[in-house]
Amino acid sequence: MTAKSVKQDKVLVTETVLRDAHQSLLATRMRTEDMLPICDKLDRVGFWSLEVWGGATFDASLRYLKEDPWERLRQLRSALPNTRLQMLLRGQNLLGYRHYADDVVEAFIERAAANGIDVFRVFDAMNDLRNLETSIRAVKRQGKHAQGAISYTVSPVHTVAHFVDLAQRLAEMGCDSLCVKDMAGLLTPPRAFELFTALRQSVNLPLSCHSHDTAGLSAMNHLRAIDGGANMIDTAVSALCCGTSHAATESMVAALRDTPQDTGLDLQLLQEIASYFREVRKKYAQFESEFTGIDTRVQSNQVPGGMVSNLVNQLRDQGALDRLDEVLAEIPRVRADFGYPPLVTPTSQIVGTQAVFNVLTGKRYHTITNETKNYLLGLYGQPLGKVNPELRRLAIGDATPVSERPADRLAPELNRLAEAVQGVAHSPEDVLSYALFPEIALKFFEARAAGRLAPEPLPPVPVEAPAPQGTPTEFS
Amino acid sequence: MTAKSVKQDKVLVTETVLRDAHQSLLATRMRTEDMLPICDKLDRVGFWSLEVWGGATFDASLRYLKEDPWERLRQLRSALPNTRLQMLLRGQNLLGYRHYADDVVEAFIERAAANGIDVFRVFDAMNDLRNLETSIRAVKRQGKHAQGAISYTVSPVHTVAHFVDLAQRLAEMGCDSLCVKDMAGLLTPPRAFELFTALRQSVNLPLSCHSHDTAGLSAMNHLRAIDGGANMIDTAVSALCCGTSHAATESMVAALRDTPQDTGLDLQLLQEIASYFREVRKKYAQFESEFTGIDTRVQSNQVPGGMVSNLVNQLRDQGALDRLDEVLAEIPRVRADFGYPPLVTPTSQIVGTQAVFNVLTGKRYHTITNETKNYLLGLYGQPLGKVNPELRRLAIGDATPVSERPADRLAPELNRLAEAVQGVAHSPEDVLSYALFPEIALKFFEARAAGRLAPEPLPPVPVEAPAPQGTPTEFS
Ligand SMILES: [Co+2]
Ligand SMILES: [Co+2]
Repeated sequence: MTAKSVKQDKVLVTETVLRDAHQSLLATRMRTEDMLPICDKLDRVGFWSLEVWGGATFDASLRYLKEDPWERLRQLRSALPNTRLQMLLRGQNLLGYRHYADDVVEAFIERAAANGIDVFRVFDAMNDLRNLETSIRAVKRQGKHAQGAISYTVSPVHTVAHFVDLAQRLAEMGCDSLCVKDMAGLLTPPRAFELFTALRQSVNLPLSCHSHDTAGLSAMNHLRAIDGGANMIDTAVSALCCGTSHAATESMVAALRDTPQDTGLDLQLLQEIASYFREVRKKYAQFESEFTGIDTRVQSNQVPGGMVSNLVNQLRDQGALDRLDEVLAEIPRVRADFGYPPLVTPTSQIVGTQAVFNVLTGKRYHTITNETKNYLLGLYGQPLGKVNPELRRLAIGDATPVSERPADRLAPELNRLAEAVQGVAHSPEDVLSYALFPEIALKFFEARAAGRLAPEPLPPVPVEAPAPQGTPTEFS
Repeated sequence: MTAKSVKQDKVLVTETVLRDAHQSLLATRMRTEDMLPICDKLDRVGFWSLEVWGGATFDASLRYLKEDPWERLRQLRSALPNTRLQMLLRGQNLLGYRHYADDVVEAFIERAAANGIDVFRVFDAMNDLRNLETSIRAVKRQGKHAQGAISYTVSPVHTVAHFVDLAQRLAEMGCDSLCVKDMAGLLTPPRAFELFTALRQSVNLPLSCHSHDTAGLSAMNHLRAIDGGANMIDTAVSALCCGTSHAATESMVAALRDTPQDTGLDLQLLQEIASYFREVRKKYAQFESEFTGIDTRVQSNQVPGGMVSNLVNQLRDQGALDRLDEVLAEIPRVRADFGYPPLVTPTSQIVGTQAVFNVLTGKRYHTITNETKNYLLGLYGQPLGKVNPELRRLAIGDATPVSERPADRLAPELNRLAEAVQGVAHSPEDVLSYALFPEIALKFFEARAAGRLAPEPLPPVPVEAPAPQGTPTEFS
């Protein structure tokens, strides 16, 4: 695809309802049984891809739904024969919370591809591209589509030129397409235009825009990203759109209709799919946030909404909810000390917890968490900005921060993992589940062996009150 | 304001939370007591105007809230000393459901101005500008801002050239600004760009975009309208935004920040106002529609959402809900026969009811309603398209349709109205309330005299369930 043809082509849509949308709105709790009945229609829409796997779905499936995530993937693969299936992968972290050795990363990607994934969106919280090397190489080895994703953030060091540099390096690493991943709703329309214009001019790959609608900007960001040269967008069918999820699929389809960027998708069919998911959503009402509307606070304080919720829980547990404003004010300072990492799993937790300690102990860095130490040792990768040297000395003393690729320090571990679950694991997929979530996977295997796998119960959907009567009929 | 300066100026925001937003989402039920406590903050934001009056608020105040709408206006005027107050006026219909004689229109506008309205947005359902003449002249006579609004619709005859022609004629009539009023969410981003570009090139007035978010397009429409040359937008603070309401104020402010169109409004203050209205909204939960999400069906069938709800009620009452699809298919045919009027009060009711009869009687135009006859006699004004001559003959026989301005047929009526309520009416404002809603006003006056004015009761706000626990913390 040349830059020119990219620009003229219709916009390609990645539908996120089966992954990011319910991860964002329903705590990742949607069950496979609620996905399969609508797959026939989803498969007929003509999405460029359906994001169906990865992110937190693997964890939630094993932990809460007592579903084998690999089995979900196989079922979706067979129910969606005509649509690319896409997953989100945290580079060397895969779907877990630590760095894995290369042999695990390679095996995981091989199995994901074999079970049905066509498109791997790979990112790293730190944008340290060394954490993507193994994944991207493995995806290409499987003959699959590698989409390199850049974690979008705002800071004095995150310039357009920096993002362009990342994009060019991802292109050199063999990516088939690139994605700007705005996980927190920080992107704005003028910035989207500036950024995608610069990317379009410097990289000859399809460009995707992923922008959460937290601040109500996602649809406008898409429009401006497309003006700049994006030709792929992430959306969620309206029943699970907006708020911390994505711009509505139907709205983007309607917005681009009869333009050179027309998606060509069938609005009628999408409306039917939305009706289906409106009913499904009701089953998961207990997992809805109290607040699901537009929240532009992230545009004022740059702290992602999900991070604020976590801090609220953390402070409530410690009876210190009244210190929230202080913690919110401390976060940008900690982030600056840390060299401005994007705030996303796991850096959001590391920065957030350190900020809580800095406030609650009454003295900044009086207590330094282990995660902060590991971060400052370079175990998560290299931040873009300069780390505060005083803090580093305080945290790690004279220890030398790691300078090589973090995973270079990890010995192969697949065989060890396989041995550890010999007898309980029934497949290479089981071994990988265990690799990612050891305790949860063991519990899962145990329940499976005993024939008592059962998802957490869902309360029945409440019967609806009758529609209000006597409301005025005028619309103006 | 020259075209050039208009283009470079910051975008001016009209906040609709006190009128259109709650009319669209809460059946126009918000009480003055819930408006006044936040007026101090609203007044400090720096909105170009606050829409606070007109539309259905007058009717709802008298009918359900047992509030004197004039008293509401005076209270808001005194609570909002620094912000222009805006109202929506249906031209010769004022806020009622028939055409009034010119003396009533003039008296109404004089009293509205005297009680606090600065900006009069005046429109006609048929876009028959003769129905706006008296109003616009009266507004200018009061030294107030006359904004001419064009009812936006889609049809084979509603070309950009037609809308430009309307705009130029409104400019010649002395309007201070113009508004494209997309009451149904029919506007799309490319169409908004095309339309505002053409308007900008041909009219030297500020241009406002009013686009309901029914299909999730309002914010994108604003962006494209601004690209084309709009410099005023209607928004609703996020607590009462989206769905059948408007794009979120905070999102538009964030979207335009750091651009030449920066609104200059304070996001922090807007967030506080949104918090306030989130609580207020809970009081009116009984008036919420069952469905408040994005609905792109209007983009497929061109039938406004509010009209569909009315039809559903109408058909349910007659035990014929199963005929809805037939009625929806009949509506475009009736509308074509009628010369393609925009579908908005009252034409939406006239076309809708006739379509119901056409379907339920089993024979098109076997029964012709009185409203259809009056419409075809030209009593509502002149449609843009050609009326089906067979239908006209069937409906009005050899009668000659009215060719003069409809209100020219109406003798002065203010004195007669004043006499009719002598003793009960305490002010010229009372007489005007009676003119608009005779029965409801009389009941209101009676209750007021007896000292038993009481709003319809509101059930107590339910206590909230505790926030769900154990939801995953990741956002990606
Ligand atoms: Co409106
Ligand atoms: Co995401």
